[in-house]
Amino acid sequence: MNKISAAEGILFVVSAPSGAGKTSLCRELVDSFPDLRQSISFATRKRRHGEADGVDYHFVDSDTFRSMVDQKQFAEWAEVHGNYYGTSLQSLEGAAKGGIDLLLDIDCQGAAQIKNNFQQGVFIFILPPDYEELEKRLRHRGTETDDVIERRLANARKEIPEARWYDYLVVNDNFQAARDRLIAIVTAERCRSDRNVHLLDKFTFEGDK
Amino acid sequence: MNKISAAEGILFVVSAPSGAGKTSLCRELVDSFPDLRQSISFATRKRRHGEADGVDYHFVDSDTFRSMVDQKQFAEWAEVHGNYYGTSLQSLEGAAKGGIDLLLDIDCQGAAQIKNNFQQGVFIFILPPDYEELEKRLRHRGTETDDVIERRLANARKEIPEARWYDYLVVNDNFQAARDRLIAIVTAERCRSDRNVHLLDKFTFEGDK
Repeated sequence: MNKISAAEGILFVVSAPSGAGKTSLCRELVDSFPDLRQSISFATRKRRHGEADGVDYHFVDSDTFRSMVDQKQFAEWAEVHGNYYGTSLQSLEGAAKGGIDLLLDIDCQGAAQIKNNFQQGVFIFILPPDYEELEKRLRHRGTETDDVIERRLANARKEIPEARWYDYLVVNDNFQAARDRLIAIVTAERCRSDRNVHLLDKFTFEGDK
Repeated sequence: MNKISAAEGILFVVSAPSGAGKTSLCRELVDSFPDLRQSISFATRKRRHGEADGVDYHFVDSDTFRSMVDQKQFAEWAEVHGNYYGTSLQSLEGAAKGGIDLLLDIDCQGAAQIKNNFQQGVFIFILPPDYEELEKRLRHRGTETDDVIERRLANARKEIPEARWYDYLVVNDNFQAARDRLIAIVTAERCRSDRNVHLLDKFTFEGDK
């Protein structure tokens, strides 16, 4: 008798420069898959209007964050725009073992650490159509100062070349199309044979071979 | 100035045991993507009712087929159920260079040769839910004799373990769900970053680096 082993949970890591539409796209993705859970990062930045602690982020102060770094509790952590963000290693390991697919929405620095430290994950980079459109979207938000917008654009210029080592590039030229591409990536990755060899067990008989 | 290079066409290779629903699923896939062309194989088997030469297959006699084998015109060829089937190497190379995505519906022996000889392709295996369902579907067709059905079931038993080396496994437990999974695989593979690095060219500036 062959033992049927369950598949491990998949970690989907999504990065994008500010203004590329990552937050809205990730929300759509989670809404499309009831069995895909969004990973909740730790963050030291100020809570924005409409955000809730333990839902959007685990909001902590800088001292707490640093002590967690010292205790090696993070699979990745980084400073972005003057704040700290981090993902608990325990939560990633628990999801993988429990067969739970996880969506992790993080910046390039964090994604690179996940790739190095966690040794697994499907890496997706969302691209704006071009810089002009990215700037237009950032200015249309109307929530940031010119200084912040300039800093975000400078960051985008550094981050976009990093897209090269990601597994997938999704251009957000059209929101609906970008959403469909992300959904397709999750569906396709779930069909990868290395994650589904256990399906073949029931087709193998004692007499064969 | 960076030169923007176009992506190569992707070869999608789909295999399945007889009765798993491959033909109908491949038809749906081609209908869903106007820019995905179905590769037309050469075949020595008798043309079935409703099939057209040059559309379903290039129907040739055994002598013609053998001379093509001698001239190494095939990327793959195989004997299946007493007939010969083959795919022209030239057609695969032409599509790849021309940026045309191609769907190739072939048996496991042919798929393995493609993997060895053509060195590229996305390999998808369609699985029936189980043997009982496969047998039921074959008998429901009502077009084959018991002998042929028994031969197809014996072949399935040999072919299904081959699914292990394919890139994707798609279970056809529900036609609509299997169709959606296949569509997702095509969409996702088109987003793979190794095929889209040229998209990053427009984000690279002389001053950067």
